[in-house]
Amino acid sequence: MAEKLHNHSRLCIHTMTTKPWSLQEAIDGYVRAEVPNITVWRNHIEDYGAKKAGKMLRDSGLRVTSLCRGGFFPATGAAAREAARDDNRRAIDEAVAIGAPLVVLVCGAVPGMELAVARQQIIDGIEAVVSHAQDAKVKLSIEPLHPMYADDRSAVNSLEQANNMVMALNSPWVGITVDVYHCWWDPMLKAELQRAGRTIFSFHVCDWRTPTRDLLTDRAMMGEGCIDIPRIRGWVEQTGFKGPIEVEIFSNDLWEWDQKKLVERVKRAYLTSV
Amino acid sequence: MAEKLHNHSRLCIHTMTTKPWSLQEAIDGYVRAEVPNITVWRNHIEDYGAKKAGKMLRDSGLRVTSLCRGGFFPATGAAAREAARDDNRRAIDEAVAIGAPLVVLVCGAVPGMELAVARQQIIDGIEAVVSHAQDAKVKLSIEPLHPMYADDRSAVNSLEQANNMVMALNSPWVGITVDVYHCWWDPMLKAELQRAGRTIFSFHVCDWRTPTRDLLTDRAMMGEGCIDIPRIRGWVEQTGFKGPIEVEIFSNDLWEWDQKKLVERVKRAYLTSV
Repeated sequence: MAEKLHNHSRLCIHTMTTKPWSLQEAIDGYVRAEVPNITVWRNHIEDYGAKKAGKMLRDSGLRVTSLCRGGFFPATGAAAREAARDDNRRAIDEAVAIGAPLVVLVCGAVPGMELAVARQQIIDGIEAVVSHAQDAKVKLSIEPLHPMYADDRSAVNSLEQANNMVMALNSPWVGITVDVYHCWWDPMLKAELQRAGRTIFSFHVCDWRTPTRDLLTDRAMMGEGCIDIPRIRGWVEQTGFKGPIEVEIFSNDLWEWDQKKLVERVKRAYLTSV
Repeated sequence: MAEKLHNHSRLCIHTMTTKPWSLQEAIDGYVRAEVPNITVWRNHIEDYGAKKAGKMLRDSGLRVTSLCRGGFFPATGAAAREAARDDNRRAIDEAVAIGAPLVVLVCGAVPGMELAVARQQIIDGIEAVVSHAQDAKVKLSIEPLHPMYADDRSAVNSLEQANNMVMALNSPWVGITVDVYHCWWDPMLKAELQRAGRTIFSFHVCDWRTPTRDLLTDRAMMGEGCIDIPRIRGWVEQTGFKGPIEVEIFSNDLWEWDQKKLVERVKRAYLTSV
């Protein structure tokens, strides 16, 4: 079991957790609440452009944990796959512009495409952009997604698969993002976390609601679902991970809240249930 | 790839696929449509009792593939676990009464219970009822459920886990039910099907809809989702499986159809997309 978290120094919030807020509102809200770290979603920088967003973030004093998200490599036809790689190169450039040391990859899947084919296209796609990442000094992390997203979001659905891909790609710029929501059910979770070791580049938390009313946007606040988050955090930290703990919650319910109160609720849940 | 299915001799329909129909209506509907096999859900025999349901089924000439479902072994407290085992013994007795050679187990899970604990309680629970099954000459099959049901329906979420349990239980009366809906995403599926071999007791089909709008009741007709069913059927049949192919679809959409037309649609999809 992990040692209890006593302050918010490692707390990071994803801009998607406070989706109704613009990037400026999120920056202001996190700074006001003394949340020190932010992960920025690309849709939240669209209105500003990466350059201006970067200035806003630097001026704020927030540390940028990562940019979400690159990926979506599988596609039908070489031209579409090259377009996906170009988009990932742009994501890497945007990460540089906003001061993010990491781009998280939601690797992609195409309904009806054989999963083994999609998985190979993912490996090939990451391999094609890794030199761009290295030149930019931006890391890339493969985030295995829950198997319920294997149709159209990611053909990488277990930590074992992600670990195999990281081994195959064999670059210090490629690692793994662990999200308790996607991995909590996995009987091999502890063993595969140990295997991942120092290739764990980032760590996301939220909780699994029973019943889950929507596959994408019904995630729960930490402590309000069935995931033993402290236990999984303990396993992650046994590998030496000391990075930010990122709260990423997609929730129609919570997006309807006053987002300022939501941030306070995140802060409380972080201390009691992470 | 499996050889194309040319007739409906192996087609089986679950009474839950035509949920609005009573057991009598389902029997009449399947007989009229020349569907030769039926899997009966316990909720569909409640109104009649197992004895009367058994007579209705014998009189119909339908072959009963299995009774759905036993399981739900994990519980907090020894008394609750014993009650669950008793319920499974009753399910076995009901299977005898309706002429079903198999009880399918949805093994159970309790939100917040450590999954490793739930998994052990499942093994212990099956072990406790297997002699009852043997005496009744009724087989039991572990159906691994999709990981999105790990919170409250089943802590057995991969074929690998189910295979491990079958090995641990080491009884000719305990095997596996494979459902493409639960397993299609699994990168180890082909290998674990080979490993399961003759312990595959039954085989369920439906399809995965994109987007899936409900975790439980938005399954698709075969051919209308992203699962390559013929490919998986081929793998299943490479093990020597020649049993019924069971159409089990939970779908709010399809339950609103004229159920007679639905059965015809099942028959067409069975020939084109299984």
